[in-house]
Amino acid sequence: MIEPLEIAALMEKFAPPDAGKATALRLAIRRGVTERVLRPQDELPSTRKAATALAMSRNSVIEAYEGLQAEGVIETRRGARPRVCALPDLRPAQTPRPAPIALSQRGQRLSANHREGYRVGRIDAFAPGLPDPSLFPRDDWAICLRRVARRNRGGLDMYEEYQGLPLLREALALHLKRSRGVSVSPDQVFILPCTQSAMALMSDLLTDPGDHVMMEDPCYAGGKALFAAKGLVTRALPRDLPRDLRMGPGAEPAKMIYVTPSTQYPTGTRMKLARRMDVLAYAEAQQAMVIEDDYDGDFVWKGADVPPVFSLDKAASVALIGTLSKSLMPAMRLGWLIVPPALVTPVRRAHRALGSSVNTHVQAAMAEFISSGRFARHLRITARTYQERMICLTDALQAGLGQDADVSRPDGGLQVMLRFPEEVDDVRLHDLLWDRGFQMLPLSRLCIESRERGLIIGFARATPKSSARLATAIAEGLAAL
Amino acid sequence: MIEPLEIAALMEKFAPPDAGKATALRLAIRRGVTERVLRPQDELPSTRKAATALAMSRNSVIEAYEGLQAEGVIETRRGARPRVCALPDLRPAQTPRPAPIALSQRGQRLSANHREGYRVGRIDAFAPGLPDPSLFPRDDWAICLRRVARRNRGGLDMYEEYQGLPLLREALALHLKRSRGVSVSPDQVFILPCTQSAMALMSDLLTDPGDHVMMEDPCYAGGKALFAAKGLVTRALPRDLPRDLRMGPGAEPAKMIYVTPSTQYPTGTRMKLARRMDVLAYAEAQQAMVIEDDYDGDFVWKGADVPPVFSLDKAASVALIGTLSKSLMPAMRLGWLIVPPALVTPVRRAHRALGSSVNTHVQAAMAEFISSGRFARHLRITARTYQERMICLTDALQAGLGQDADVSRPDGGLQVMLRFPEEVDDVRLHDLLWDRGFQMLPLSRLCIESRERGLIIGFARATPKSSARLATAIAEGLAAL
Repeated sequence: MIEPLEIAALMEKFAPPDAGKATALRLAIRRGVTERVLRPQDELPSTRKAATALAMSRNSVIEAYEGLQAEGVIETRRGARPRVCALPDLRPAQTPRPAPIALSQRGQRLSANHREGYRVGRIDAFAPGLPDPSLFPRDDWAICLRRVARRNRGGLDMYEEYQGLPLLREALALHLKRSRGVSVSPDQVFILPCTQSAMALMSDLLTDPGDHVMMEDPCYAGGKALFAAKGLVTRALPRDLPRDLRMGPGAEPAKMIYVTPSTQYPTGTRMKLARRMDVLAYAEAQQAMVIEDDYDGDFVWKGADVPPVFSLDKAASVALIGTLSKSLMPAMRLGWLIVPPALVTPVRRAHRALGSSVNTHVQAAMAEFISSGRFARHLRITARTYQERMICLTDALQAGLGQDADVSRPDGGLQVMLRFPEEVDDVRLHDLLWDRGFQMLPLSRLCIESRERGLIIGFARATPKSSARLATAIAEGLAAL
Repeated sequence: MIEPLEIAALMEKFAPPDAGKATALRLAIRRGVTERVLRPQDELPSTRKAATALAMSRNSVIEAYEGLQAEGVIETRRGARPRVCALPDLRPAQTPRPAPIALSQRGQRLSANHREGYRVGRIDAFAPGLPDPSLFPRDDWAICLRRVARRNRGGLDMYEEYQGLPLLREALALHLKRSRGVSVSPDQVFILPCTQSAMALMSDLLTDPGDHVMMEDPCYAGGKALFAAKGLVTRALPRDLPRDLRMGPGAEPAKMIYVTPSTQYPTGTRMKLARRMDVLAYAEAQQAMVIEDDYDGDFVWKGADVPPVFSLDKAASVALIGTLSKSLMPAMRLGWLIVPPALVTPVRRAHRALGSSVNTHVQAAMAEFISSGRFARHLRITARTYQERMICLTDALQAGLGQDADVSRPDGGLQVMLRFPEEVDDVRLHDLLWDRGFQMLPLSRLCIESRERGLIIGFARATPKSSARLATAIAEGLAAL
């Protein structure tokens, strides 16, 4: 028989201070049972006795007991006192802690640190790959968001459209036709949070662990990290692709060829037509899928913009990836994946299984943002601003570094590549600059087979003053190496 | 030498009608080259000649030629006419189409149809697992969204917080403490689009293809489909768990045990304390992780709400999953995964690699929605409404079906399970009802080893009239079988 005093002590010890009496009693008894202070088959005081002893209303005690009975903590039988249920013996607390949960093989690959050798995470004006958050069209976006959120949209609030809101897929298809010369049906468009999720999906779909993937060399670190996380072997896409398009002896065909033709990351060059056709033929010969990452396709600084390789493709072997991370902001978490018709059904099922869909209001607002012409206008304004800042930074670097580094203006994108002679330790230089408050990427860490040295520097927020300061810091860093 | 007339024909054929002259010329020549109408080394007319013949300004022709040169379509040498670049031979159009891209083994598993035998996709008042969209607090939500979108949030717009916005993780941790009795640090909370993505992540982390997972029987179809997509073997969690907690001879241990203790899907019962402790001990003995899906934890109809198994766990072997899909709406695409401290780092890296993050404004708005008390108020109001509808539907079914089916009120959640005798073909019944406009799930398709027959029916939008109509349709369907 459990004494009311024992229960009062449990309430003092375990019940949250702001809980009502009935809740406090229920929580205290439950905790007493799970902590083995109250033992199976122990009898509880009658509701009347408990009410008097604990200064509660009888109704509160009855409510607590009923709750405990529903949970299976106590059992009540007519005419008998309620008693603690029979409960399994859990291992006593003094036993050694059980071994921690082990990761699987795919789990170990997925959660390994594939981004070693450079520092990221500090928001700095020169971090590569970041837009200027102050250019984000807050008021316009807030208006679109509010408008769509207030609308009663019936079925659209449900699970219907895993692939993405039809309105957004249509708006995007039209936008891509106008701005990038891409002809696709909205059926081929999938909405996902980012390029990373698109690459993860395509990797799952087309590769098994141990398969090969080719990337440009130097390459995009995030892609390389993802392919490693998916168990793939990354090889450099050869500079000279074999003429006869067959693989050399002993060379394993790649399952995917990841390229950034619009603005090669990190070199900033646009891929020439001959190379585009070579890559397509090379992929076709290997039966590899070309993963075309058009992440920076909205920002073109030199020459005219060129439609993606996707538009040249006749063998249905290119998947096109895009994102709002650069043109609006990374935290939008809205990107897209466009696949040839034959892959639509498998991608649809995989996409649904992985659950990587995007909030419906964000999608609807983006559809409106595009259709109303706001997006195109935003791109025009920001492109002009970014181009000025690119020139500002490259001028400052050329003036401040002279012969010490090779600075050239990129064809597009939001970063500049600085090349050093091979003896320069760019990782150490990047460390020195980190200590002075600058976050940039060391080029050597983006190399696969090549051995280049340099820095990748973002210019989205560059000013003449900050650019000059950076050039000085780099010059001093080089001198201090 | 290419004649201007030939170029004019290409422009007519290939240039978009709304393009400017320079763009039209550039696109037409590029297309002529990629289509092999213009051959490598062919000479183009001079800018002067082209301008006259095509009735364009000379500047437009120069602009087009410069663009083509930057793209690598034509080359110009001083004093010579521009000519088409040397380009690789692509396979001629008449060759047979190359074999389509093959899916990998993991891709085949991921994109197989694991949801056969029932129909979904039509939005119907009785579809299980769906809330009532008209209860979504549109105006309150629109206000929160707009407010956060207009704020300049600096670094928050960048890539900083893959794990989820700190504000939201804090608000959620506090909400879960108050509403579900769960004590966690915001560090253990991960924000993802949905329970599906949380399960995909945990499957990747803890299992390899061929591993075993246990589920309650009958089970949640979406989870079963996902585990199949991840290559896992699903086994029924035994009703009587072995007393000595060791696996029987020949039984392979499970890597994960997926349970829905708060409201078992689809039976609608709450798991008793003894079973909760049994499951924990059983998981610990196998070194399996318990995946606790609290998808319907906000809606409790019978007895009091019970804290998740997560709170009972002392061996750090439970991951807790939650979602806004039921309490707000599925298209919110916002859920969470809470893991023991030892798993925080691996989950953080896997989560980043997979890119399954959520739009920042949605996260910030939700943080505000919770902190301002709006969410708790919304839950109180909707729970009351749903409980009335649950009673309305179960009453109508009991009245309309009598002895033909076993109808009992669920302990929680948004659906009712109807049980039939074993001879009833519930898949056919579900087909008949589909033809009459009702979407529900046949119980037999949710069974792993058991052989139960029934229907799972959602009541979120049930009215007395529609419930009576449904009861009649089911009775007529049963008679027609």
